[in-house]
Amino acid sequence: VASRPPPDEFALIARHFAPLARDAPLAFGLTDDAAVIRPRVGQDMVVTTDTMVAGVHFLDDDPPGAIARKLLRVNLSDLAAKGARPVGYLLAATFTRAVTDDWLAAFAAGLAADQAEYGVALLGGDTTATDGPMVLTITACGEVPLGKMLPRGGAKAGDELFVSGTIGDAAVALAWRQGKLPRLPAAAADALRQRLLLPEPRLALGQGLLGVANACIDVSDGLVQDVGHLAECSGLACEIDVAATPLSPPVRALAQADGAWLDAALTGGDDYELAFAAPPAAAGAIAALAAALGLAITRIGRFATGAGVRVRDSRGAEMTFARRGYRHF
Amino acid sequence: VASRPPPDEFALIARHFAPLARDAPLAFGLTDDAAVIRPRVGQDMVVTTDTMVAGVHFLDDDPPGAIARKLLRVNLSDLAAKGARPVGYLLAATFTRAVTDDWLAAFAAGLAADQAEYGVALLGGDTTATDGPMVLTITACGEVPLGKMLPRGGAKAGDELFVSGTIGDAAVALAWRQGKLPRLPAAAADALRQRLLLPEPRLALGQGLLGVANACIDVSDGLVQDVGHLAECSGLACEIDVAATPLSPPVRALAQADGAWLDAALTGGDDYELAFAAPPAAAGAIAALAAALGLAITRIGRFATGAGVRVRDSRGAEMTFARRGYRHF
Repeated sequence: VASRPPPDEFALIARHFAPLARDAPLAFGLTDDAAVIRPRVGQDMVVTTDTMVAGVHFLDDDPPGAIARKLLRVNLSDLAAKGARPVGYLLAATFTRAVTDDWLAAFAAGLAADQAEYGVALLGGDTTATDGPMVLTITACGEVPLGKMLPRGGAKAGDELFVSGTIGDAAVALAWRQGKLPRLPAAAADALRQRLLLPEPRLALGQGLLGVANACIDVSDGLVQDVGHLAECSGLACEIDVAATPLSPPVRALAQADGAWLDAALTGGDDYELAFAAPPAAAGAIAALAAALGLAITRIGRFATGAGVRVRDSRGAEMTFARRGYRHF
Repeated sequence: VASRPPPDEFALIARHFAPLARDAPLAFGLTDDAAVIRPRVGQDMVVTTDTMVAGVHFLDDDPPGAIARKLLRVNLSDLAAKGARPVGYLLAATFTRAVTDDWLAAFAAGLAADQAEYGVALLGGDTTATDGPMVLTITACGEVPLGKMLPRGGAKAGDELFVSGTIGDAAVALAWRQGKLPRLPAAAADALRQRLLLPEPRLALGQGLLGVANACIDVSDGLVQDVGHLAECSGLACEIDVAATPLSPPVRALAQADGAWLDAALTGGDDYELAFAAPPAAAGAIAALAAALGLAITRIGRFATGAGVRVRDSRGAEMTFARRGYRHF
């Protein structure tokens, strides 16, 4: 089947993106300069923006629908970390001039699938073209009860550090994809690759942590670095127990065979799990949340007066890392 | 003076961008995943996003401060067209890896200048790197009284079409810059170039048009095309009287010498004036607004039942155009 040529800007928006705004009457079918968000009384608006660059955050031959869904999900993950309920999003897409209509259709279909999954709508956007790598930005908007947003900087000395799910799957999947990991069973590789391609924003967990957690972050740039943000913003030190840190079976097997994989898991990023601080008295509420959501939530450390993150291995020795997480420059 | 090397991502944000969020306590000094906007009761939030791509919307050797200010202003212009009062903005910046610290400092200084001028603050953002052309996206947030946003699609048959300021200055400046316009007095060239580099979002006008205009758009892609959006979204036809269309003296002189310059002025884009529909009874209110703002507002046409935009020259003949405005693809 031959690809149709790319449509002009207005036809492109009308054909692929306007249907994504159908359920948002205040998006005016994407024909206006702006969209309206009518916040409910008693709610704060939470806004966040994240960019993905071709060749950096995804590869040109990734499935377009998966690129779209990851772009939306990494933004929803930021809302999850704030305890916010997502409302909608704006898409600023800088496509290559050679983009095909089929590629755009698959990209829009990915957004449509996740809009249905997460109950959000496209509110507006801008479409431009570049001679260089594609650059895709979403700005996501959510709402959270007035003054209740989960901050990064609210941890208290004595709080415990928790993390959802498992850590390091995406980092291992990226290494596998880069050919650095020759021996991995196909089923394990598929499961890890799925974690890299299609993270699950922990929205229900974030909203459940309102009134339970004192501080929260989504683990996007590496556990050690992101826990460092929690500690620094809270003016505290944090200690991470590596023995307690949840790893999936293939990552655990790799880490046991070669400690470099443990380092990669702890610093590799793209986990999109929530790391949060909560007082010891919250343990029951957290256990109830984990059971209700069918999601592992593991206590992996504690906050104390002081500064910095210390990572202790299973014998209690302090680990050091060449880098603590992903940096863009 | 040697350029300092670019800082790492976090140092870059802390040094150049965090100061821009100082006056927005709910931006958390840009150290959080998201920012909070607390809308006032009785106000809608208006959100809009616009991207500028190096080599398309600006040139690599444009002054960084001017690039920053234009990026912010084109977004504020969208808010102006909705009658919204700007509140703040998010910046998703994909810089080249070779960006210098001096360039970033000048870019941030431009944002700081316009933040002071327009009373907005940086609320959040994302910083990434590309091997290709720089891509800069701002998402701007404003507020407008509940349900009062000026739409594109609200014009009524019998409404008159108005435009602020003068049309075509930026289009002529771009041609001058591209070397297509050898003879232009230096003072005239400077004035036109200023219009291209540093548009003025018509925020006070937009807010003054609440309750006065039935429909509004900012002229960003060319007068004929953007008036076409007003007409199409309103389900009406619109006629533009070219003889009434306000041109600055140098553009008028060029247009009289060669009709191609008139075409360029009417379709060239980057004007960032407001075009709006208002009933004849609003003439007094509009004249009062023009006087209060010290800004020309000119009646240049009318809306009627039907479809399409007709442009009549000074003899009443219908003009046709090779293209009606800017298209990205």
